[in-house]
Amino acid sequence: MNRPTTHGGGEAAPPIAGDPSTFPSDAELARTLVAGTTRATLSTITEDGFPYGSAVSYAAGDDGLPVVLISEMAEHTVNARGNERASMLISVDVADGDDPLGQSRLTLVGNLRELDEPGELRGRYLEVHPYASYYADFTDFGFWRLEIERCRFVGGFGHMSWVPTDVYKTAKVDPIYESAASIIEHMNDDHSDANLLYVRALADLPDATDANMVGVDCYGVTLKADTPAGPRMARVPFIEPLTSDEQARPEIIKLLEKAREKFENKKQ
Amino acid sequence: MNRPTTHGGGEAAPPIAGDPSTFPSDAELARTLVAGTTRATLSTITEDGFPYGSAVSYAAGDDGLPVVLISEMAEHTVNARGNERASMLISVDVADGDDPLGQSRLTLVGNLRELDEPGELRGRYLEVHPYASYYADFTDFGFWRLEIERCRFVGGFGHMSWVPTDVYKTAKVDPIYESAASIIEHMNDDHSDANLLYVRALADLPDATDANMVGVDCYGVTLKADTPAGPRMARVPFIEPLTSDEQARPEIIKLLEKAREKFENKKQ
Repeated sequence: MNRPTTHGGGEAAPPIAGDPSTFPSDAELARTLVAGTTRATLSTITEDGFPYGSAVSYAAGDDGLPVVLISEMAEHTVNARGNERASMLISVDVADGDDPLGQSRLTLVGNLRELDEPGELRGRYLEVHPYASYYADFTDFGFWRLEIERCRFVGGFGHMSWVPTDVYKTAKVDPIYESAASIIEHMNDDHSDANLLYVRALADLPDATDANMVGVDCYGVTLKADTPAGPRMARVPFIEPLTSDEQARPEIIKLLEKAREKFENKKQ
Repeated sequence: MNRPTTHGGGEAAPPIAGDPSTFPSDAELARTLVAGTTRATLSTITEDGFPYGSAVSYAAGDDGLPVVLISEMAEHTVNARGNERASMLISVDVADGDDPLGQSRLTLVGNLRELDEPGELRGRYLEVHPYASYYADFTDFGFWRLEIERCRFVGGFGHMSWVPTDVYKTAKVDPIYESAASIIEHMNDDHSDANLLYVRALADLPDATDANMVGVDCYGVTLKADTPAGPRMARVPFIEPLTSDEQARPEIIKLLEKAREKFENKKQ
């Protein structure tokens, strides 16, 4: 799944061409990462004060707070009963050979508390993790939620921030994140000419010789271009931010028309 | 990569057919998991006492202790300078839709200490993580090692143990772990007849109608068989434990000869 990062590569990366002000905010990137991922590492504290990492499956509520279904017999539950302080690390999957330091991840820090009445969160959890339905009703399993106090987002090399929790809780999940990967694949497989036109006409890289789409979100597309001066990242905003998946295709075409127009004008 | 687990499936699993006493020990499974993985979640403790999870790349020494290369600017390093208590969660990758609770993972708990002289561990780290060579010499990056005090291994549902640290440090990495996945693929793609013969003749499942190899290690093979009574796990030991990759193919053939012989004898 594609989850856009504003930066990639080493520390001496050149400035991003086009309009980098139109990247999603870190809060939006964090919420989208949480929505697009289902597993995390839970860290709790042992009785004698060691931090203890364990693997959990989660689902997030509308406020982005992750909910887990855990067993009283598991170490993390024993730990949380003794000390509610906890965190969850949520990361994108890293391809073999890639440096994980270049990838997006998020640490949500707070207090892990049992939900007396999970309500609709139960259904949401089981929708994401259907295999859990056979133990969800065991008396030693319970739903717990991480009530966050701090939120550390890292988007890649040199791109990191503390996101205020109220901003995190109210930020929007990117409305097109579920389609992003297939849009990117389609554009790179079948429309490399369009990608090149975007960076030439709309990101001020007229000498670019090739371009690949590497990200798409409701605000625009991110491309990696080959130029005589070396590889360059470029950001091209949509004319209007998208509010749903269905708008992606027509907006990408509108963007292409805009690029063609601009390109033709420049040539005259 | 295949990493064998002794149990799979739900809690009411039937006993394993064949010879389950020949599974690797949890210490060996733990060492093999650490050797076959390169990324972990590091948990440290913040200045104000919250456990903090972060993504790290590691390489392990001959004693199985993981070494990381971390930046002074990173949260985990700031945390470790204030409180050396730490843990690392090392897990197999989980396929989409699978329950991570059924997969192998390991939590190493101990103290994270900077190595004044990383020695050969530096070379080992960069061999596993070549992309790190461009920042390995930055003055704000250093090699740190987790000196373990506790080792929690979970092999899947209902299969877990605390492995004593001295046992962990001296246990062997499975000598054929790097070939296991390709052996399994080959046996399932091209030799399903052999898999079936193994479980029928050597795991006392004469009524089995199909069998798939799901694990192989230096002590034997693990298979999942279809039987009239439902699916059954089976364990078939090698005649002698293997000490190297190269022995796998001839030993699997020897096992097949043994199975054929036994099957023929039974029929007479």
